[in-house]
Amino acid sequence: MVGQIWKAFPEQKIIYFGDTARLPYGTKGVDFVKRYSEKIIGWLLERGAEDIVIACHTSSALAGNHLRKRFKDIRISDMISLPAPKIAGSFSRIGIIGTPGTIKSKSWEKMLLQENPKIKIYSKACPLFVPLVEEGWINGRAAEEIAESYLKSFKNIDALVLACTHYPILKRLIKKRVGKNIKIVDPAEILANELKFKVKDKGESRFYFSDTPYNLKKISQLCLKKEIKPIITNPF
Amino acid sequence: MVGQIWKAFPEQKIIYFGDTARLPYGTKGVDFVKRYSEKIIGWLLERGAEDIVIACHTSSALAGNHLRKRFKDIRISDMISLPAPKIAGSFSRIGIIGTPGTIKSKSWEKMLLQENPKIKIYSKACPLFVPLVEEGWINGRAAEEIAESYLKSFKNIDALVLACTHYPILKRLIKKRVGKNIKIVDPAEILANELKFKVKDKGESRFYFSDTPYNLKKISQLCLKKEIKPIITNPF
Repeated sequence: MVGQIWKAFPEQKIIYFGDTARLPYGTKGVDFVKRYSEKIIGWLLERGAEDIVIACHTSSALAGNHLRKRFKDIRISDMISLPAPKIAGSFSRIGIIGTPGTIKSKSWEKMLLQENPKIKIYSKACPLFVPLVEEGWINGRAAEEIAESYLKSFKNIDALVLACTHYPILKRLIKKRVGKNIKIVDPAEILANELKFKVKDKGESRFYFSDTPYNLKKISQLCLKKEIKPIITNPF
Repeated sequence: MVGQIWKAFPEQKIIYFGDTARLPYGTKGVDFVKRYSEKIIGWLLERGAEDIVIACHTSSALAGNHLRKRFKDIRISDMISLPAPKIAGSFSRIGIIGTPGTIKSKSWEKMLLQENPKIKIYSKACPLFVPLVEEGWINGRAAEEIAESYLKSFKNIDALVLACTHYPILKRLIKKRVGKNIKIVDPAEILANELKFKVKDKGESRFYFSDTPYNLKKISQLCLKKEIKPIITNPF
C-alpha cells in the first residue's frame, strides 16, 4: 500500500505501523483483529496521523466498519469500501483471493452485491501465498504448483481481485496461471488514487514495527523497490 | 509434543498454552520470544503446573537457557537440551531443519558440538513447512516441490532432525525425499521418553489458546488423532 500511495502522491509523509509481533492477521480471530487494529489506530493518532489507511486487507474486512464507528472524527479508508464500487462498476464475474480471515468474513461479497446484486462472485482463501512471498519465492516450480492448486477453480471470471497486501508481488505468477483475458485488480492501486489526501506533509516517513521484521530487506525491495529503516517498538 | 507425551505417559494431565495470538514464533525476534515465553511459563505456574515442557522448538532454541535461569525452582525441559546428547551419541553427520529463528540461533550446533566436536552439522530453515501443515497439504505436488527445494542440499547425512513441532506431520514426505538410509529424528519423541514425570496427575487436560486457533480440527487430528476442546484466553 505504501508503494501505491507514493506512486499516486510522491513524497507524502507516512507514519507506518506494521504489527510484526502479531502477524499474520489472516488466520487470527475477529475480536483479536478488531482489538489490535483499534490499538494501532489510537497509537497512530497520538503520533499525529491525520488520515488513516488500513493497509491490511484482513483488518479492512474484519474491522473496517467497527473502526469507523469507533473513531468518528477522522477519515479511515480501507482496502474494500472505496475500491469495491469501482470494481463492481467494471466487472460482472469477479474472483476474490485473500487470507482465510478476509474470505470467511464475506466482506467483499457484501460490498460488491450491495453495488450490484447481479454480480457473480467466486472466492478462495490462499493461505500459502503470504509465506511464499515472505520466503521470496515469487516464481519457480513450488510457487507454480501452489498457484495451480489455488487458482484452478477460477473459470469464466472477468476479473480477479488480489485482496491481500502480499499478492500483488505474485501478480506475474497469478497472471500466468489465470490467463491474459482475466483482469488482475489490485485494490491498493484503486484506493491510492481515490484517497485525494487533504494533508500533503512532505516530512520524512517513519516505519514502526512491533517486532524485528522477518526478511525486511527482500520484502521492502519487492514492495517498494527500496530499503526502509525500521523502528522497533511494541507499545501494546 | 502432547501426542508424544501421551504416548509415553498415557493419561498424564497437561495444561497447554498455545500462543495463537502471536504465532508463528519461528520468524519473531529473540527478545520477543524470550519475553512471551517467560509470560506463558509464569501463567502456567499460576495455574498449578509442576513441570514445564517448552513444546516450541523456536522458544527452546532462543529462550530455553534464559527461562531456566529465570525460573530456578522448577524443571524446564526443552526440545534441544535433553534430545541433543542422545542424537550426538548416535550419529556423526547430522542435518537440522527448523524455523528461521531456530536455525539462525545455532542452538542445535552448539549443543551437538559440545557433546562431540567431530560431528558434522548441516542446517536449513524451511519456513514454508509450517503453513503447509496448517493448510493440511501434507502430500501432493506443491508439498513435494517445497520439500525438494529445501531438502535437496542434504547429502551424505546419516540423520535429519525435525526441529519444529509441525515437521513430524510431514515425516512421510520428508522421508520420501531424503531416502530410506537417512534416519528421521523427532526430538519430541526422545524428550517424551526422557521426561520421567514425577507428578502423574490423571485429571482432565486443558488446552488454552490466546486466540481462536486456525484449522484446529484438522491440525489436532493430524497431531493427536483426536479433537480437543479449546479454551480461548489472552492474559498478556
